[in-house]
Amino acid sequence: MPKISDEKRAARRAQILEAAWGCFQKEGLHATTMDDIIRASGLSAGAVYSYFPSKDQLIMAAVTASLSGLTSLVEPLLRAEPALAPPELVRRITDTIDRFTTRDGYDLKRIALLGWSEAQRSEPLKATMKSFYFDFRSELASAVARWRRHKSDTTGNPESDVAATLLSLVLGYVVQSAILDDVEPEGVTRGLERLTQPKG
Amino acid sequence: MPKISDEKRAARRAQILEAAWGCFQKEGLHATTMDDIIRASGLSAGAVYSYFPSKDQLIMAAVTASLSGLTSLVEPLLRAEPALAPPELVRRITDTIDRFTTRDGYDLKRIALLGWSEAQRSEPLKATMKSFYFDFRSELASAVARWRRHKSDTTGNPESDVAATLLSLVLGYVVQSAILDDVEPEGVTRGLERLTQPKG
Repeated sequence: MPKISDEKRAARRAQILEAAWGCFQKEGLHATTMDDIIRASGLSAGAVYSYFPSKDQLIMAAVTASLSGLTSLVEPLLRAEPALAPPELVRRITDTIDRFTTRDGYDLKRIALLGWSEAQRSEPLKATMKSFYFDFRSELASAVARWRRHKSDTTGNPESDVAATLLSLVLGYVVQSAILDDVEPEGVTRGLERLTQPKG
Repeated sequence: MPKISDEKRAARRAQILEAAWGCFQKEGLHATTMDDIIRASGLSAGAVYSYFPSKDQLIMAAVTASLSGLTSLVEPLLRAEPALAPPELVRRITDTIDRFTTRDGYDLKRIALLGWSEAQRSEPLKATMKSFYFDFRSELASAVARWRRHKSDTTGNPESDVAATLLSLVLGYVVQSAILDDVEPEGVTRGLERLTQPKG
């Protein structure tokens, strides 16, 4: 077989993952077969299996690729200087999620729900997600800590509580969006602003 | 067949659903067979099929039963007079979810994730969930409206935004708890309190 460049390998890998996400949304993780994905990818069976020897490996790669793709977009928000206020942070993170997950023919938010479900049965998948969400939450805590220092607010509860609250908000936004189809970053952010500026 | 009382029917139905939830947590919705559930229930195949003619009907019943069981516990919180402040509402709802979902041998929070996933492929299931979460969100909005009147706060954004934010928080709590295993109502509530009482 002729050698192909790293760039071409990455493009083919992405092409297979795109095909897999489309099939997963249509059929679910379990009913989707490698043959379905091969057909949808337009590549040969040999080519697809050379990248992903099993469906489990493909599922893991599909989850990892979506989590790390999202991370690269969200990290600059979490590390912004000066730190963003929590409502603004939520607005920009959910907005980024919306833009990153809405694709031609499928929505990665719906596929996230399939992934969480699968993680209940697959230890390696659960471990991968756990490590991603732990990191995300700890970056959220740092962002909150920097924002509080900026506001000269060092009293009270640890940042980790606020980070757990914000992570719930973001994860719940994904669920609400996938199931109810009618939420928007603006609405959830206005709601948080309303809560954070109570008029007595 | 001898007639059995309504009470006994309800108890048997609950016994079958208990068995189903246990199997679903162990094997997932798809790998679980009616035979698995029959075995776990300790009832005859005829008895189980007389309550639930198909696995799809059983899945629907398992979801509906858990949603309506939770509703009956959460409604008094949403309708409390005077209305609970949002952080207290979140604390008591997530606490209720924790107590309702933690069972002998399985956790309904994990099974909720399986249900959301299945709803991506089953329209009737998605419609059932949609209607439940819409109702929940609109009750949240009423609770917030009553709380704001109580606080003489009638300015600014509509309650529906706050309700969408609170629903995200609650749904995200379920995800975070099922995947990360380490959140508690107290932590998420302290985080929200911290956000709602910023020190300038």
